[in-house]
Amino acid sequence: MAKVKKSPRPKAQTPKGFRDYFGTEVTERSEMLRAIAGVYHRYGFEALESSGVETVEALGKFLPDVDRPNEGVFAWQDEDENWMALRYDLTAPLARVYAEHRNDLPLPYRRFAMGPVWRNEKPGPGRYRQFYQCDADTVGAASVAADAEICAMLSDCLEVLGIPRGDYVVRVNNRKVLNGVLEAMGVSDDAQSADVLRTIDKFDKVGEAGVRELLGKGRLDASGAYIDGVGLAPEQAEPVVAFLTSKRDSNEATLDALRDAVGESQIGAEGVDELAEMASLLAAQGYGPDRIIIDPSVVRGLGYYTGPVFEAELTFEILDEKGRKRQFGSVAGGGRYDDLVKRFTGQVVPATGVSIGVDRLLAALREKGRIGGTEQGPVVVTVMDKARMADYQAMVAELRQAGIRAEVYLGNPKNFGNQLKYADKRLSPVAVIEGGDEKERGVVQIKDLILGAKLAENATLDEWKDRPSQYEVPRGDLVKKVQEILDLYA
Amino acid sequence: MAKVKKSPRPKAQTPKGFRDYFGTEVTERSEMLRAIAGVYHRYGFEALESSGVETVEALGKFLPDVDRPNEGVFAWQDEDENWMALRYDLTAPLARVYAEHRNDLPLPYRRFAMGPVWRNEKPGPGRYRQFYQCDADTVGAASVAADAEICAMLSDCLEVLGIPRGDYVVRVNNRKVLNGVLEAMGVSDDAQSADVLRTIDKFDKVGEAGVRELLGKGRLDASGAYIDGVGLAPEQAEPVVAFLTSKRDSNEATLDALRDAVGESQIGAEGVDELAEMASLLAAQGYGPDRIIIDPSVVRGLGYYTGPVFEAELTFEILDEKGRKRQFGSVAGGGRYDDLVKRFTGQVVPATGVSIGVDRLLAALREKGRIGGTEQGPVVVTVMDKARMADYQAMVAELRQAGIRAEVYLGNPKNFGNQLKYADKRLSPVAVIEGGDEKERGVVQIKDLILGAKLAENATLDEWKDRPSQYEVPRGDLVKKVQEILDLYA
Repeated sequence: MAKVKKSPRPKAQTPKGFRDYFGTEVTERSEMLRAIAGVYHRYGFEALESSGVETVEALGKFLPDVDRPNEGVFAWQDEDENWMALRYDLTAPLARVYAEHRNDLPLPYRRFAMGPVWRNEKPGPGRYRQFYQCDADTVGAASVAADAEICAMLSDCLEVLGIPRGDYVVRVNNRKVLNGVLEAMGVSDDAQSADVLRTIDKFDKVGEAGVRELLGKGRLDASGAYIDGVGLAPEQAEPVVAFLTSKRDSNEATLDALRDAVGESQIGAEGVDELAEMASLLAAQGYGPDRIIIDPSVVRGLGYYTGPVFEAELTFEILDEKGRKRQFGSVAGGGRYDDLVKRFTGQVVPATGVSIGVDRLLAALREKGRIGGTEQGPVVVTVMDKARMADYQAMVAELRQAGIRAEVYLGNPKNFGNQLKYADKRLSPVAVIEGGDEKERGVVQIKDLILGAKLAENATLDEWKDRPSQYEVPRGDLVKKVQEILDLYA
Repeated sequence: MAKVKKSPRPKAQTPKGFRDYFGTEVTERSEMLRAIAGVYHRYGFEALESSGVETVEALGKFLPDVDRPNEGVFAWQDEDENWMALRYDLTAPLARVYAEHRNDLPLPYRRFAMGPVWRNEKPGPGRYRQFYQCDADTVGAASVAADAEICAMLSDCLEVLGIPRGDYVVRVNNRKVLNGVLEAMGVSDDAQSADVLRTIDKFDKVGEAGVRELLGKGRLDASGAYIDGVGLAPEQAEPVVAFLTSKRDSNEATLDALRDAVGESQIGAEGVDELAEMASLLAAQGYGPDRIIIDPSVVRGLGYYTGPVFEAELTFEILDEKGRKRQFGSVAGGGRYDDLVKRFTGQVVPATGVSIGVDRLLAALREKGRIGGTEQGPVVVTVMDKARMADYQAMVAELRQAGIRAEVYLGNPKNFGNQLKYADKRLSPVAVIEGGDEKERGVVQIKDLILGAKLAENATLDEWKDRPSQYEVPRGDLVKKVQEILDLYA
């Protein structure tokens, strides 16, 4: 199978675009996934874990944000010449699972899934070829009550993770409204619709005037390049601009503006009705516009989804790599996609769901200092006499049995300085020392390393200087004294 | 890249050898991993998560239980023609990570890792091509104190998972003792050593007499085939047989028997000393032979490891697929492997570790009925009037805010029977009903579905028949009454 390049020594590095996660990077992520799973579960969703590998034919070409076919996927042939690939998201496997097991699954089927996905794309800063997704989807429910429920659940998830109300917002839009806008414009040609969609996507950057130019003859962009326009008549641009600028202070006013934008279009009216129904269902559950709002500027994903579309955004500011303030932006998104299962079964099965970008969310919480970073290390029992390793092991066993994280120094014990350096690197709060003299007298030395570090930093520190940083206690009081020191810093 | 076979409809199935996990299969595994991670952490181990994909050259050919080179691995070429592969275990990536980050990592480095690994092998019953591993390793500690610590930790893990003392045992052996036995036999040739190792591996099946035959001229096996022997003189077999049968009632007696088996061999004596030291370190921590024993019959992995080898076995009996009693067998194994990092750096770095087979362990606990199987489903709020969906959403929101798992029925509400069938399939304990009449009177109907099912099963059931299975309560008491019913079955 694989032909290995002969080389005297392999390079110790990850493949390009992959990375390792250490310590709290791992544990903070699993705590986050666990918290989200708790919310999903409370909403009646069931866990599903499919494998990382699928047949290429089952995965299909459904990568939401690309036009490319099998590009973007890691794929290979198995021994029977069948193509297999690593999943690129958790939605394509859901469609396969649902089609395969539909006779055994409840209908509607609410499921959640979390795990790594892989993309064979050019890696960039902060962009890796393996990352986590954390999805919840409802398959088999046509009602927008299912979409509303997912928006409420997304809001609950963010709050459970420690993002207070006001620091986030879930924005909701609807693809049918856009279809209505296209109808009102008199655009029915697929290629032209796609051009209009692409233009709408640029609204953020080019603004209202820019969108008018791009829908018409074209536009000179900032770099001096001329961008060809879609070639519509000026009045045809009106419904799009009305749509993009229809956001008002209240949901009711926004809905009115949208009704104007879609004009006589029936599909457009349906979209606005769906938005209105979602708003009223959410209000009934207590999710007002302080958490979930109708916002026609949500365009990401409008090309992929078929009905409601939603996006969660963090609204607090962070500093970017150049020290400039910016909003953190989107951390989750989703919507209704009614055609995914059809590929397998021929039947249209309505489905809606959300994907939370846990890695982005972790990055946001870290930048805000809301989660840990460093964690206190274990208590280190030093080794003064190699021959008495059993004594040290007994100490560490006692500490662990009391629920205290602890370890014996297992490197070469000859140089005691190295042991303290090791404790330092491990961010240990406490070191335990028992030399021959202590052993004889039935005592141990317990060093408060946190205080020790503070004293070393600033020896004249008044508030600390009278506190001892090392204690001699009877061997029998080891656990008690260590616990006492840990409690000081808990 | 991947050439997709054109077909009108893709097959909805996993690739051969892969499977999906549903509901409690997923949550029970993550609870198990979490519990094990807690023990690993208390012992001072740090989490590490590397990606599923490595370069083929970094992975190397270290699959412990096969002689095959790159077979057994899923591999492909990336756009730069470099070979990448899915990891087949968590040890090879550890070696790469340690070599890559050694300047930043503490020494010794204790790390744990858990996640899926992939093997491109023939799938069989209960044998999948993706499965979980859950490892802890100490890199950079030459002392057998590190091995002893891992055995103690393994014992703690099993007990934390609800396997009581007596239902498991951790068996310890040492590769150096075997090397001593080979020396005592006068076998120094590598090929012959490998033959002897293979014979030892068959001890379980062929017994003492069989081993003597296989080391000598050969043996007629049960199927009538003649298996060629290693061709040693009869007296050369003595040390091997002495080694394999050296297990005694106490560790001390076993150690004495092993000393006899290795004769004058220095490496053999070293191995016996290491076993003795591990036993004494473990005894000092309170891990006696009721949990961890020296057992020379542990031969699995002896070819791969370089020093201590250990294996955890469940000793309780289960029924196999044919209803016969058998012991469940091994659920974890590990040992010392000192050469893994050397491939990258040229330096020998001592390392030791353990891998817990979580999927096997889950299977064992399920067979013993020690973990769940089925879980109670959510409370289902039924939909009597589609136009009043907001009312039902409000109910479900109240229930969730009280911490109760609940959902609204999101299928087509027309047929009420379907809603109750759905609740049944979901294993719902309670259904909530609010028709127009109830709405008017400000009440809701709450159905105790567990009691309902019991009554349906046996209508004359005396102890139940006087208990109502449906209650009418004021709408304001919804949460209180549902909680009351749930408490009955908690």
